[in-house]
Amino acid sequence: MKILEEKILEEGRVYPGNILKVDSFLNHQIDVGLLDVLGEAIYEKYKDKKITKILTIEASGIAVACSVAKHFNVPVIFAKKSKSLNLGDDVYVSRISSYTYGKEYDAVVSRDFLGNDDKVIIVDDFIAIGNAMKGLIEICVQAGAKIEGIGICIEKGYQHGGDDVRQMGYDVTSLAIIDDMKEDGTIIFRE
Amino acid sequence: MKILEEKILEEGRVYPGNILKVDSFLNHQIDVGLLDVLGEAIYEKYKDKKITKILTIEASGIAVACSVAKHFNVPVIFAKKSKSLNLGDDVYVSRISSYTYGKEYDAVVSRDFLGNDDKVIIVDDFIAIGNAMKGLIEICVQAGAKIEGIGICIEKGYQHGGDDVRQMGYDVTSLAIIDDMKEDGTIIFRE
Repeated sequence: MKILEEKILEEGRVYPGNILKVDSFLNHQIDVGLLDVLGEAIYEKYKDKKITKILTIEASGIAVACSVAKHFNVPVIFAKKSKSLNLGDDVYVSRISSYTYGKEYDAVVSRDFLGNDDKVIIVDDFIAIGNAMKGLIEICVQAGAKIEGIGICIEKGYQHGGDDVRQMGYDVTSLAIIDDMKEDGTIIFRE
Repeated sequence: MKILEEKILEEGRVYPGNILKVDSFLNHQIDVGLLDVLGEAIYEKYKDKKITKILTIEASGIAVACSVAKHFNVPVIFAKKSKSLNLGDDVYVSRISSYTYGKEYDAVVSRDFLGNDDKVIIVDDFIAIGNAMKGLIEICVQAGAKIEGIGICIEKGYQHGGDDVRQMGYDVTSLAIIDDMKEDGTIIFRE
């Protein structure tokens, strides 16, 4: 998506270790005008799918999910991150290993809000190696909910999480896919 | 605000220890239609104040902040919660003691996104004893930003954080104020 790629080139900063910071518009400060455009693009892709819920995970996925959900007029559910081992029986749980932070946590969703009559789009700001996304998929599988699509703002193509999820058979829509970054700040997008 | 009070009465659940769960529409599942109405109400209160930024803290404040910011067409900044002690010099930091979770953490905002030319509304889904809000106020003070108002969805009046912040001289707009809850589920709103 041209507008997002331009914004990444303009404001994104590349750090050693293939780290891309987009905290001026996506995950610390949020450009709400851009967010609306991103949400609409994901809506356009799946608008005929009779979507009932938008699923994401806290924290920075929430803004994108709300923007998508507004167009569908359906609820957002955001999975909570928990380190607690005593979560009760009324939740779906998936263990996620965070590559960015080198820690493990549980993604937790109440059984009250997701079930086998739901048609879901899973949304997040980023996909890198894809562990958080695989956790959200696992929660939908536990719930028996149908995953109609996966909407991502920025896919780090060189970390292969998006392609893993495509190979699992899911329809992944990434609004910008970065295939390579160089330490001089060059960013190469997938065609 | 009548629509919010009715939603709390309809879907809120009261648990022992003065715990109110509104996770069906505000802080786990999110009713995006209601969210839009709440955001607009906060906008209406401060629309003449030449607001430049909406400040909140992750995670559940983000949805409300985006809804408010959309009406102003200004960016959201969400403070990050960090336990790290090595944060560098390029951030504002305020130590917050969490009543709900019995833990301490730092609220962190990059100096890049908040400064002494900003006019800010601080937004959150809840205020209880008010420690998170006092931390966000402290960050604005460090930045020299002017706090034009504080917008809250649900104030737990019986925990006095909202009144503390009013006594500090800030203009607090809470869309629903709960003055008492009983274990039979009765909820008493402030007039």
